[in-house]
Amino acid sequence: MTSSASHILLVDCPDERGLIFRITQVISSKGLNIYGNREFVDDMDHFFMRSEIIGALHAEQIIQELQNILPATATIRLFEKRKKKIVVLATKEHHCLSDLLVRNHFGDLPIEIQGVISNYDTLRDFTERLGIEFTHIPAEGMSREEHEREVMAAIRRYSYDYLVLAKYMRILSPWFVAEFKNQIINIHHSFLPAFVGANPYKQAYERGVKLIGATAHFVNNDLDEGPIIAQSIIPVNHTYNATEMRKAGRDVEKIVLATALKNVVEDRVFVRNNKTVLFD
Amino acid sequence: MTSSASHILLVDCPDERGLIFRITQVISSKGLNIYGNREFVDDMDHFFMRSEIIGALHAEQIIQELQNILPATATIRLFEKRKKKIVVLATKEHHCLSDLLVRNHFGDLPIEIQGVISNYDTLRDFTERLGIEFTHIPAEGMSREEHEREVMAAIRRYSYDYLVLAKYMRILSPWFVAEFKNQIINIHHSFLPAFVGANPYKQAYERGVKLIGATAHFVNNDLDEGPIIAQSIIPVNHTYNATEMRKAGRDVEKIVLATALKNVVEDRVFVRNNKTVLFD
Amino acid sequence: MTSSASHILLVDCPDERGLIFRITQVISSKGLNIYGNREFVDDMDHFFMRSEIIGALHAEQIIQELQNILPATATIRLFEKRKKKIVVLATKEHHCLSDLLVRNHFGDLPIEIQGVISNYDTLRDFTERLGIEFTHIPAEGMSREEHEREVMAAIRRYSYDYLVLAKYMRILSPWFVAEFKNQIINIHHSFLPAFVGANPYKQAYERGVKLIGATAHFVNNDLDEGPIIAQSIIPVNHTYNATEMRKAGRDVEKIVLATALKNVVEDRVFVRNNKTVLFD
Amino acid sequence: MTSSASHILLVDCPDERGLIFRITQVISSKGLNIYGNREFVDDMDHFFMRSEIIGALHAEQIIQELQNILPATATIRLFEKRKKKIVVLATKEHHCLSDLLVRNHFGDLPIEIQGVISNYDTLRDFTERLGIEFTHIPAEGMSREEHEREVMAAIRRYSYDYLVLAKYMRILSPWFVAEFKNQIINIHHSFLPAFVGANPYKQAYERGVKLIGATAHFVNNDLDEGPIIAQSIIPVNHTYNATEMRKAGRDVEKIVLATALKNVVEDRVFVRNNKTVLFD
Repeated sequence: MTSSASHILLVDCPDERGLIFRITQVISSKGLNIYGNREFVDDMDHFFMRSEIIGALHAEQIIQELQNILPATATIRLFEKRKKKIVVLATKEHHCLSDLLVRNHFGDLPIEIQGVISNYDTLRDFTERLGIEFTHIPAEGMSREEHEREVMAAIRRYSYDYLVLAKYMRILSPWFVAEFKNQIINIHHSFLPAFVGANPYKQAYERGVKLIGATAHFVNNDLDEGPIIAQSIIPVNHTYNATEMRKAGRDVEKIVLATALKNVVEDRVFVRNNKTVLFD
Repeated sequence: MTSSASHILLVDCPDERGLIFRITQVISSKGLNIYGNREFVDDMDHFFMRSEIIGALHAEQIIQELQNILPATATIRLFEKRKKKIVVLATKEHHCLSDLLVRNHFGDLPIEIQGVISNYDTLRDFTERLGIEFTHIPAEGMSREEHEREVMAAIRRYSYDYLVLAKYMRILSPWFVAEFKNQIINIHHSFLPAFVGANPYKQAYERGVKLIGATAHFVNNDLDEGPIIAQSIIPVNHTYNATEMRKAGRDVEKIVLATALKNVVEDRVFVRNNKTVLFD
Repeated sequence: MTSSASHILLVDCPDERGLIFRITQVISSKGLNIYGNREFVDDMDHFFMRSEIIGALHAEQIIQELQNILPATATIRLFEKRKKKIVVLATKEHHCLSDLLVRNHFGDLPIEIQGVISNYDTLRDFTERLGIEFTHIPAEGMSREEHEREVMAAIRRYSYDYLVLAKYMRILSPWFVAEFKNQIINIHHSFLPAFVGANPYKQAYERGVKLIGATAHFVNNDLDEGPIIAQSIIPVNHTYNATEMRKAGRDVEKIVLATALKNVVEDRVFVRNNKTVLFD
Repeated sequence: MTSSASHILLVDCPDERGLIFRITQVISSKGLNIYGNREFVDDMDHFFMRSEIIGALHAEQIIQELQNILPATATIRLFEKRKKKIVVLATKEHHCLSDLLVRNHFGDLPIEIQGVISNYDTLRDFTERLGIEFTHIPAEGMSREEHEREVMAAIRRYSYDYLVLAKYMRILSPWFVAEFKNQIINIHHSFLPAFVGANPYKQAYERGVKLIGATAHFVNNDLDEGPIIAQSIIPVNHTYNATEMRKAGRDVEKIVLATALKNVVEDRVFVRNNKTVLFD
C-alpha cells in the first residue's frame, strides 16, 4: 500500500518482551506518527518490524536511541523513501524486460532503470526506443569468467541498488553473486523447488503437471536456491506442449517479477535463513 | 495463524499519535508478552488493533488502564481465547452444513455447534449421525413472522455466540436480524455485489460470466448488503448451464463459509461502516 | 494452442443428429486433416464447431458442399489463418495500451495494430516510440456525436478487423456501436455484472469487497452489458483504498484484455444470445 | 458436465486422417446421437476421443464395427454410465476421508464407497456413523509385506473399480501397486514434483515457498511419480510455520482429491506415457 510517509524504519533482532513498546516510545517521543506498522516473530524467536514514519526527523539520532534500547545484535535501518536504481540483465526473451521498461517509463514503480546489459543484441531496439542505455556483451569466444568480468564492469559504470535478471539465461558464478549479496533478483520459470535448472517447461511438460508457475527470488550461490520473494501459477492441461507452456507462462513470469521487485524496492522484504519475511 | 496466546485484545478508536506506544506500554508494564500484533488505520483515520497476549492477567484492570490512556470513544475488548458457540440454520442443501459439522466433529475450528435448525427435515439424519441436535420448523401454513418467532425461540434455547446461515434459503425480517447484530454469518452463492437475491447461478448463467463465486458476510437489514468477510471464485465456461454452475459452486461456497467463520471465531474481524477489517 | 493448421472452419446451426459426421465427411473427402476439433451444443440445442484444417483447399467449394449437408440456417465460415488488423482507442491510462503495443511490437499475438486514437494526447509519446500512429481527437467543445463522428472518421482511415477499447473512458453512442457489431472489445475494471458504470474501484472500496476483477467483453448498446469474453480477479483486503485498488487492478486488467483479444483474433469465440462460446 | 447420455465411448489409437469421420459414421449409422464429443492428438500423434452417446445400443456390435474401421492397435471402450465402486485407505487424518464419505453419503459423486481400511483405528467412529464398514489393520509387529497382504485381502473382500488413498501415510510396495494398475488414486500434499516424499509441508516451510499445493495422481512404482490428475495451490506467507501450512493445506487437498476422483469415475481420464489426458 502507498502512503504519504517519508521514512521507513526496519528493525530485526532477537525477540524480547516489550520491543514494540520500546521502539514506538522512541518514535513517539519525537512527535512522529507511525503509519502501517508491521511486526513478526519467527519460529526461531527472531523479531522483525517495519514502520512507515510521517514527519521530519533526524535519522542518526533516532537510530542511536534505538540502539540504546534494543539488543546489541539488532539491525536497525531508517532512511527516506526514495526511488531505487536498477540495472537489468536480459538475454533474448522480451516479456520481463519490456514489462519493467514500461513500468519504469510511466513511473508505476519507485525505480529508475539505469541500463540494460545483455549477452545478445536482440532487445537493443526496444530498450533504446524507451530511452534506456543498452549494452551488448556477447559471450562467444570468452570464458565464463571473462564474460562475467565484462558484465560486472558494465554494471559498475552505473550506480545501482539492485540487479534484476529479467530472463537472463546464463548461470552466474559464485564470485559474481558474492559481490551483490541480496541485491540480485531473478525470475525462474517454474514454481520452485520444482524444475530447478534448465528448461523447466520441458521438464513440466514431460512430468505432465496441471499447473505451471514462476518464482522470483534473490540469487545466492546455489542455482535457484535463493530466498523466494514471490510465486504464482496458472493452470495448464494436456493440450499444452512445452512450447505452449513457455508461451502461456510469460504473463505469470512478468507479473511475479514485477510484484517481487515492487516489494523489494518498497523495502518490504527481510532476508533471514534463506527465507523472506515480506510485509506487503 | 495459531499461537499459545491465552488472551485477545481488540481496540478500535479514532487515530492519535502514539496509540501503539501507549497500548503496548500498558501490556509491557504487566510483564506480558505480545504475540502477533496487528494494526490498521483506515481512510477515516480510525485505528484498529488486535494483539494476542501470552501470560496470566487481570483483564478488568488492564481494560481500565487502557481506558485511561485511550480516546473516550475507544472500544476495548480483552478476553480469554475460547471456543465459540454456534447455532446453524439450513434448508435442504447439505454441503455447507455437512462441512461445518465435520469440522466441528473433529475440532478443526474453535467452535461448538449447539444445534441445527431447518425449515425442512432433509438434513436431520446426517446431523444426528454426528450427534448434533436437529430441529425441524416447517414454514408451511405460517406467516413469515410466525415462522421466524418459532425459529428464534429454538435459537434462544441454546447459548450461542454466532448464528450461521449454511444455505438457509429464507430471507430474514429486519426485526429478526436486529436481534443478532453482527452475529449472523451468511453464505451467498455469488461474488457480491453481483447477483444479489434469488437464484444467482441462474442469473450468472444468463449473463454468461466466466467466473462464479461465493461471499460470506454478516447479515444486516438489506438483503445481501451486509459487511463482507470472505469471497472466492472459480472459473467456469460456456459448457456450464445454471445447474452445473450450482454444483460447481458448492465447494467454493463451503470453503468460503468455513474461512469466514474461522476468522470470526478467532476474533480477527472488526466491523465498521458496513465493511470488515480482517487481521488474518 | 498453436498449430501448423492453415485454415479455420467455424460452423454454428441448430443441432441435428450426425452433424459432426457430415462435416468431417466433407473435410475428409478432400484429403484434408482436421486438427483440434471442438464442438459444443448449448441448452437451446444450438450446435457450435471449430476446426483447424491442415492442407491446401478451395474454401468456396467446401463451403458450398457444407451448405448442402447442413441446416439452411447454418452459419459457415472457412478462411485462412491470418493476423487481424486492430485499431485501439485509449484515454490517459497506459497499462492496457502499452501492454498491447508491446505484444504487437514483438509479434506475441496475431495482430497488427494500425493506429491509436485518444481523446487525450498523454499516450502519444509512448505510442510513437513503438512506431504506431497516434491520433489525438480532443472532446472539449464538441457534442458527443461530433466527437464520435471524428473518431469514426479516424477509424475509417484504417483497415481493421476489431476495435479495442484499452481503457477508453468515454461511453459510446448506440449509433456508433451499431457500426461495429461484435467488433468492439472493451476492458471493464470490475468483475461484471458487479459495479457497472463509472468508477468501479470506488464502488468496490465502498462495498468492502475482498476481491476485485476485470472483464473483457464485446460492446453492445447497453453499457457494460455485452457478451463477456474473459474475466479474472485478484484478492484485496481492508488495507486497499480505492486508489490502491485501482493500481492493483491494472495488471489483471491488462492480462484479461490480452487474453480476450488472443481468443478473438484466433477465431475461438462465437457470440450468441449475448454470451460467448469460447474454444480456448 | 452432466448429461442424459447413457453410454461413454473412449477411443485411443495412432492418429490417421478421417478418424472422427469414421467413428461418428458408425455412431450415426445406428441412429444414435453424440453429446459432448472431445478429441485430442498429442505430440506423439496419438489420438484420444471421448463421446457421450444418447440412446439404446448394442455395445458389442458397435465395438466390432469400430474395430473394423480403426487402426489395429486402437483401444476401444464403450459402456453404460454407472456408479464406480471405491475402497478407501486412510491413516489418521480425517479431512480427505470425511470429505469423500460425505459426498458419497449425499450422492454428490457417481461413487459407492464399499469400505474404509486403515492402519489406525482413529477414523472408525466417523466412518461407521455414516454407515460405511471400517477395517483396522494395525501395522505394528508386521513386516511391510505382511501388512500389505492383509490390506490386500481386505480389499479383495469388496468389489471395486478404484482404490483411493485418502492420506494413507504408508508407502506401497511395487508388487502391491502392480495389482492395481491405474486403479489407485493418491493425494500428495505438495504441488508435485516439488517436495516428493515425507513431510512435504516441513520441506515447504524450510524452503520458504509462497504457495503450497496438493496433487492427486495415479500411483505407480515410483513414489509420487505417477500420472498427475489434478493439482491446485493456495498462497502462504512467512507467518505460516510447517504446522500451519499443514492445516491450511487440508482444504486444498480434499478439493483436489475430490476433483480428480470425479474426473476418473466419470471416465474423463486417459493415461498414456505417465501423463493424463483429461476431458473435463
